[in-house]
Amino acid sequence: MQARVHRIPAAGPDDVAGLRDLAGSGALRPDRVVAVLGKTEGNGCVNDFTRGFASASLKTALAALTGRTAAEVDAQILFVMSGGTEGGLSPHFLVFEAVPDAAAPTPGVKSLAVGCARTRAFAPEEVGRMQQVAATAAAVRAAMAASSIAGPDDVHYVQVKCPLLTRARIEQAHRAGHGVAAEETYASMGVSRGASALGVAVALGEVDASALHDAAVCRDTTLFSRCASASAGVELLENQILVVGNSAAWSGDLLITHDVMQDAIDTAAFARALSQAGITPALPLAPADSARLVAVLAKAEASRSGSIRGARHTMLDDSDIPASRHARALVGGALASVAGTTLLFVSGGAEHQGPDGGGPVAVIARRLGEGL
Amino acid sequence: MQARVHRIPAAGPDDVAGLRDLAGSGALRPDRVVAVLGKTEGNGCVNDFTRGFASASLKTALAALTGRTAAEVDAQILFVMSGGTEGGLSPHFLVFEAVPDAAAPTPGVKSLAVGCARTRAFAPEEVGRMQQVAATAAAVRAAMAASSIAGPDDVHYVQVKCPLLTRARIEQAHRAGHGVAAEETYASMGVSRGASALGVAVALGEVDASALHDAAVCRDTTLFSRCASASAGVELLENQILVVGNSAAWSGDLLITHDVMQDAIDTAAFARALSQAGITPALPLAPADSARLVAVLAKAEASRSGSIRGARHTMLDDSDIPASRHARALVGGALASVAGTTLLFVSGGAEHQGPDGGGPVAVIARRLGEGL
Amino acid sequence: MQARVHRIPAAGPDDVAGLRDLAGSGALRPDRVVAVLGKTEGNGCVNDFTRGFASASLKTALAALTGRTAAEVDAQILFVMSGGTEGGLSPHFLVFEAVPDAAAPTPGVKSLAVGCARTRAFAPEEVGRMQQVAATAAAVRAAMAASSIAGPDDVHYVQVKCPLLTRARIEQAHRAGHGVAAEETYASMGVSRGASALGVAVALGEVDASALHDAAVCRDTTLFSRCASASAGVELLENQILVVGNSAAWSGDLLITHDVMQDAIDTAAFARALSQAGITPALPLAPADSARLVAVLAKAEASRSGSIRGARHTMLDDSDIPASRHARALVGGALASVAGTTLLFVSGGAEHQGPDGGGPVAVIARRLGEGL
Amino acid sequence: MQARVHRIPAAGPDDVAGLRDLAGSGALRPDRVVAVLGKTEGNGCVNDFTRGFASASLKTALAALTGRTAAEVDAQILFVMSGGTEGGLSPHFLVFEAVPDAAAPTPGVKSLAVGCARTRAFAPEEVGRMQQVAATAAAVRAAMAASSIAGPDDVHYVQVKCPLLTRARIEQAHRAGHGVAAEETYASMGVSRGASALGVAVALGEVDASALHDAAVCRDTTLFSRCASASAGVELLENQILVVGNSAAWSGDLLITHDVMQDAIDTAAFARALSQAGITPALPLAPADSARLVAVLAKAEASRSGSIRGARHTMLDDSDIPASRHARALVGGALASVAGTTLLFVSGGAEHQGPDGGGPVAVIARRLGEGL
Repeated sequence: MQARVHRIPAAGPDDVAGLRDLAGSGALRPDRVVAVLGKTEGNGCVNDFTRGFASASLKTALAALTGRTAAEVDAQILFVMSGGTEGGLSPHFLVFEAVPDAAAPTPGVKSLAVGCARTRAFAPEEVGRMQQVAATAAAVRAAMAASSIAGPDDVHYVQVKCPLLTRARIEQAHRAGHGVAAEETYASMGVSRGASALGVAVALGEVDASALHDAAVCRDTTLFSRCASASAGVELLENQILVVGNSAAWSGDLLITHDVMQDAIDTAAFARALSQAGITPALPLAPADSARLVAVLAKAEASRSGSIRGARHTMLDDSDIPASRHARALVGGALASVAGTTLLFVSGGAEHQGPDGGGPVAVIARRLGEGL
Repeated sequence: MQARVHRIPAAGPDDVAGLRDLAGSGALRPDRVVAVLGKTEGNGCVNDFTRGFASASLKTALAALTGRTAAEVDAQILFVMSGGTEGGLSPHFLVFEAVPDAAAPTPGVKSLAVGCARTRAFAPEEVGRMQQVAATAAAVRAAMAASSIAGPDDVHYVQVKCPLLTRARIEQAHRAGHGVAAEETYASMGVSRGASALGVAVALGEVDASALHDAAVCRDTTLFSRCASASAGVELLENQILVVGNSAAWSGDLLITHDVMQDAIDTAAFARALSQAGITPALPLAPADSARLVAVLAKAEASRSGSIRGARHTMLDDSDIPASRHARALVGGALASVAGTTLLFVSGGAEHQGPDGGGPVAVIARRLGEGL
Repeated sequence: MQARVHRIPAAGPDDVAGLRDLAGSGALRPDRVVAVLGKTEGNGCVNDFTRGFASASLKTALAALTGRTAAEVDAQILFVMSGGTEGGLSPHFLVFEAVPDAAAPTPGVKSLAVGCARTRAFAPEEVGRMQQVAATAAAVRAAMAASSIAGPDDVHYVQVKCPLLTRARIEQAHRAGHGVAAEETYASMGVSRGASALGVAVALGEVDASALHDAAVCRDTTLFSRCASASAGVELLENQILVVGNSAAWSGDLLITHDVMQDAIDTAAFARALSQAGITPALPLAPADSARLVAVLAKAEASRSGSIRGARHTMLDDSDIPASRHARALVGGALASVAGTTLLFVSGGAEHQGPDGGGPVAVIARRLGEGL
Repeated sequence: MQARVHRIPAAGPDDVAGLRDLAGSGALRPDRVVAVLGKTEGNGCVNDFTRGFASASLKTALAALTGRTAAEVDAQILFVMSGGTEGGLSPHFLVFEAVPDAAAPTPGVKSLAVGCARTRAFAPEEVGRMQQVAATAAAVRAAMAASSIAGPDDVHYVQVKCPLLTRARIEQAHRAGHGVAAEETYASMGVSRGASALGVAVALGEVDASALHDAAVCRDTTLFSRCASASAGVELLENQILVVGNSAAWSGDLLITHDVMQDAIDTAAFARALSQAGITPALPLAPADSARLVAVLAKAEASRSGSIRGARHTMLDDSDIPASRHARALVGGALASVAGTTLLFVSGGAEHQGPDGGGPVAVIARRLGEGL
């Protein structure tokens, strides 16, 4: 198999013209699409309907392009929309294709590989708790196996889309006599992302499952995954997972690397991920290197400490702009200053996704030569 | 004379404890303070009262420390508060001192020099028009002369604080039969900053005064200063100006450099300014270099084109967060990723301050050795 | 014919379950729907995608229910989504049906009547100018004729959905050598609404067309319609019009009345409209009267004077919340305090729709007895 | 004694010109001022610095007018600033004076009376818990005794200003090994207001102290005061209390009444409070009645149920505008529609202040004749 990644700018949440054009030209095979990650321009918080609007529009378009029903598209393709293009971030879709390859992979060369999986739907009282952790870990392992990714060291990015709790769902749990992990909708997004990330960490051996318990979720910030990126949305009840890594069973000229930002401005970590992908970090990047950069995926979060390298930030005390919006703008600016583009998949809410205030950063790049 | 710059973190708009502590320790001579630039944590737009609160608090504190009246402090010291610490920007004050120096300056070595000036108060109908341009240009020249800065090449940063038009002032003009350059308060901040920046450009020979006219303000984006930084506030009626440059008549171990960012993520320009100051741009900076970085001052603005290097941004279409807030977060992130600190004086609204979507960036640094 | 109005609560922009249920039960005939007005929960400003999402969802649902294509639905039904449910306003759809009636109308009794029309698509440079005014006036007259509404006195509410100018459309006009009525997207919504309302006023004889010119739009606030309600959206290029009045040619138990609020808290005007509809205004309404109230439609706007009955408001100086959002919350609260419900169609931006700071308020009610 | 109330419009948080004018004219005796309640135009949430700016400005002005030190002013006068003038609410100060009266009170006639008290400073771990409840109850009783208010039935309004927990204070508690009632600053405002209101309820016999415990705060919404209004701010560590009632020991032509709104649009409750004060509720009020209305004080809150009279509201799911801002706009609109003025002291956050989604509303009015 061969993995392809298309970065398609979007003029709005319902802009599927770019997708249609690529399909029309033959550059993209709609029936081979396995996942679409999107940055949409809502607030990325509770009342962000751009995610649902984009998902609905993409599903309708892909159903028309493939002749499948909407339900089939929904079951076969992972749609992960992350709201929030604060600062200079640019709305876009990342379309992942898995294409059969006539030639066998070059021996000894690992290439970009993708795998998908889903958990069962969660009851409201399971969100943000060990049930969500365990089901996510199992799904990550299943996705790795399905995509012939040999082991945790070859996994560089795991995207999870997870549910949130609306007031209606919180009340449903209460009526059934259950407590929930978060009593407010906004807070529920955090615990759902946190439990999902811990599930990834368990699957990859980053965190010991036996040491985990409900109370650790969103509290013990020493526990985290270096690869997970979780995004919460109102439009689903289960966890949907995309594992991205390198595999000797796949071919093609793409590869993925990653590192972990220790704080929101840790571009040294980004520089290391670029270097591992064969791109020399520089201000600015050389044009040839820029051209090889296919996608950047990172998490953003306001540090709970209230400061960055000792200097106070005001994100957590701002009642006009949610902290996650500040954080995306900040990390987007930091990464764009090196990458030279604002077409970056920076998503907010990095609970257990890297250390407090930091987060994973992954680079998908075109390989320089055969030997890399 | 010798110029000193103190970068003092602020826990809130009325936090003058840091100033008092420095004065108490003798590290800062309150009677020698010529200007205070501050980043405060309001929205940086119309209803940002953190600027006024900080100014009032600083004036009261400096009056108490110097034994002067509030009116004397107001007449002798320039207070320029810039609201908005979006993304990770950290609230702080930059206190500029001009201290008599026992020793004569080292021949052939230019050191940091500062000069202040004020225009007359402007009538509402003058704001954003040629009257404001001309008065600002004259004041910049006066400040250069007063501080023995030899010529435009030695000027690296000109801060202007300028008035805005409240509804009351707009109606006052209308009643007197005058039109105004902007009918809305928020828009008036833009034209006031724009005319002020053009005034700087005229003084420094960057723009030919004879080619200017009212209609060019905030419209002809090809006209701009490479040094100006203008900030609008409700608390004043005149323009207040701080010219910062290097001068052979001054001594001390500080110097200032600058460059112009062509867009919001142009950290190559920042890297050049750092290099000119003897600091090697790297991700991250070497610890010794970090220690020599005293202050970074930059402008931020959403490009009117609606895009950054060809990728659409959503700043101008966002009705939840003003574009200037997005822009400060973005540029703050871009600069912090190189500088390694969020204690950056990034102010919004860059009309005629650098090219569309870009802006000047200045670096105040401690000199490495005698010879620089 | 008989006009029916269904007020359907919405759990989200894409919640069409209520519509489907009514159609399923036979209470609503989907093939007879002529218009859907909706209050959706976005910000009601530029980047409000809830309007487009709701329209798309409603169109898909009505296409499925009627067996028509999406294009047919779009051509036959008017969809007018007004964003913004600030304060306590409750998201809902108002579905207007025109149903053939077996019995002839009772002589001498006028009943609720509805008529629709559309203008041609406008070029960017026509928006907010006399071309839009004239085309709207013609369309209003056409809708009156089509629905047998005898004259202006029988018209009580005219809803216009009108286009806005995106950055792309503004630049398109500039490239073609045209100026536009507003250089900023947000401002373009105002001039589009203003020109549309003046078109209604011309059609109803409220304003003399010969006295109008481009410069009067959004400037001469003495010119206004007492019936118009205009709402701007990104999803259309033409004006779409719904005229609602009473007609002797229609039957049924519904009627419409209206009055004009002189300011945002002028509930005396609302009380008069209720009285004309046979409902005794009281705090609270009698239960029987509440039950007869089918819909309330009103406009909300921050007064340009900056005050309400002499007391300063802060809506126009607030850079955190757009003025139109404040105004909807305020008028929604004022009307709900009398109506006893928050299911109110209060839309923002009342340029030339009632006097400055006020606006039309219309009441659709069930008639008490035959004789009314 | 005689209580006087001055309602002074404010052009900004630091506008003390109205206060100075009244003092200059002799209409107000600055040395007799016991309390100033203010509506200021910040966001009313965590980073609202307009409250502190207004307090600082008023203190400086009153110190200058009375010749007292700032510390004396601070110890003798209660300053309670409530941020948030959403919708049409108009910034203003309510200045309460207690003036010695030459004549004895008319026997059998109760007039407006005011009493103040303060608790000790609370440790972070006490905020939102029984320690705050008990100390507040004791202070309310002390204020009643000091002002000769005979019993709970004569108390109509109790204003409490209470502290919040900043990140620094939360961490201080954690370092000392204590938990806190709320881990987030914004949430801490709620529990502080809630515990304060329960303290008022205990003092007035509205809630049985023996039934209270830490876990009931902000959870058991069946427990509430019908008179309490609590407002949280960063600028104090203790609770400050103003009790307002009627007393036979006081004279003057003012009186106070109150009722409880069952939801945000319950103007029937407001109508009852007006009636009790001798004002006929009408749409609009008769001019003579309007003239007698001196002040309206009310609480606003988004109902946790997510609906108002069965219709969904979007306040709790809005990540762009905090729920308390929506609620103030809504209740302000509802009350203004009856009162005919937007100079209303509507403050947000009504935990245990009236039922869920509702809140107390108090009316201070000029008495019609002797006999009332």
